Amino acid sequence: MTSAPAAPPARAYRRLGVEERRAQLLGAALTLFAHRAPDDVSIDEVAAAAGVSRPLVYRYFPGGRQQLYEAALGSAAEQLTLCFAEPADGPPTERVSRVLDRYLGFVDQHDAGFSALLRGGSVAETSRTTTIVDGVRRSAAEQILLHLGRGNGPGQEPAGPRLRMMVRTWIAAVEAASLIWLDEEKQPPASDLRGWLVDHLIGLIAVTAATDEETASVVADLLGQETADGPVGRLAALVVPAGEAATHLLARGLTASGNGPAD
Amino acid sequence: MTSAPAAPPARAYRRLGVEERRAQLLGAALTLFAHRAPDDVSIDEVAAAAGVSRPLVYRYFPGGRQQLYEAALGSAAEQLTLCFAEPADGPPTERVSRVLDRYLGFVDQHDAGFSALLRGGSVAETSRTTTIVDGVRRSAAEQILLHLGRGNGPGQEPAGPRLRMMVRTWIAAVEAASLIWLDEEKQPPASDLRGWLVDHLIGLIAVTAATDEETASVVADLLGQETADGPVGRLAALVVPAGEAATHLLARGLTASGNGPAD
Repeated sequence: MTSAPAAPPARAYRRLGVEERRAQLLGAALTLFAHRAPDDVSIDEVAAAAGVSRPLVYRYFPGGRQQLYEAALGSAAEQLTLCFAEPADGPPTERVSRVLDRYLGFVDQHDAGFSALLRGGSVAETSRTTTIVDGVRRSAAEQILLHLGRGNGPGQEPAGPRLRMMVRTWIAAVEAASLIWLDEEKQPPASDLRGWLVDHLIGLIAVTAATDEETASVVADLLGQETADGPVGRLAALVVPAGEAATHLLARGLTASGNGPAD
Repeated sequence: MTSAPAAPPARAYRRLGVEERRAQLLGAALTLFAHRAPDDVSIDEVAAAAGVSRPLVYRYFPGGRQQLYEAALGSAAEQLTLCFAEPADGPPTERVSRVLDRYLGFVDQHDAGFSALLRGGSVAETSRTTTIVDGVRRSAAEQILLHLGRGNGPGQEPAGPRLRMMVRTWIAAVEAASLIWLDEEKQPPASDLRGWLVDHLIGLIAVTAATDEETASVVADLLGQETADGPVGRLAALVVPAGEAATHLLARGLTASGNGPAD
């Protein structure tokens, strides 16, 4: 909370290894990019934040701000990708919950920098940075598919197009919800948002299974791994009683063939 | 399918009113932007496509390519916004289905231009164009909220934050699904995609209602307007029998308080 940006940098000039120094500079840059648009951050400010000289920053990033921005994005992408890694043990929705907790922690911490990264509205955006973001999205999709039993895991079949579209669409929804959440001053609390995003995935899987055989077979496998106290059980306990209000629709729907009007 | 791009422009110089000529130029520009990145389209090509001279294009758009691009986006945004308009009569999910049919028709027709507009990866993107896209998103959200009974309609209460976040998130999901659909050579057929997007909305509303009182009260109002042959009835007929596979979760979930493990 307290900081001393105007402190003389001399003391910070302790000897660091190349990798350590690079990580320090990227950390300082990321903190600055997190709160301001990339084009508003100068190399001087990065140097001041890291407590080093301007030439030292250029020694590590001769390409200046653009190179530093890309490297900072790359490092953020790496951190985000690490958030997604989750062992394939236990109820799948609880694994997804843990992934989302880490992801939302990242969003919370990087805030404006995360928005800038996803919105891509900055002048500094290049085809290179889009590739970085897309790489993170691809890796998120692979991780989710893994927990659905259709990833690159041992003995897993690759997902078909509908299931893949479902996962990519949900990831886009998670991104959008995160941006809206930042925009709404982080309301509701992160744990509520996480719960709702997991519910969203469960709902989306349930409706997709209604018209896609592969997703239906994934659901059958998943349900056996879930518990009554986990996200699926809690959600079902809430949705099913509420669904009684829809019995007037269901009574006719079950007798109809499902294709068009009966009269 | 057949075209004669090399035809001499002379015959096209029939007298058009100012608005008519402007619309013609925007139409030609939009067609070009639909298939190529904005920065790959020259004023000469727009002139050739419209069958007019280069100076005439500049008379209408003195700012050149950038101005033409912004005007073309503005015109596309206007067309998209018109797609959303739907009378507030009949089952709400059928209204949303009709809106999505028109929207997917637009996506299908403008293809690459639609991707470019949303991806915003082009050099020609400015803070101005982002505002255009955001305006379309806002208007889409208002329309959907209207059909949920929480829009700007007469006697409607404004939506609370959770319902608003739900609708904005779904709209982002629809955008993402449209881009993925274009990327996957428009598979599945548009009508299947539309059905799935409506199911997605129904599923999202159902799970959101489980933890948000306002959404629960919206659901109660909506269900009375739906029919067994409509999207909700058809989906319920498919999901409810499949849900029997989850009764082992539900049995315990219903007896538990819903807060944490019982043992």
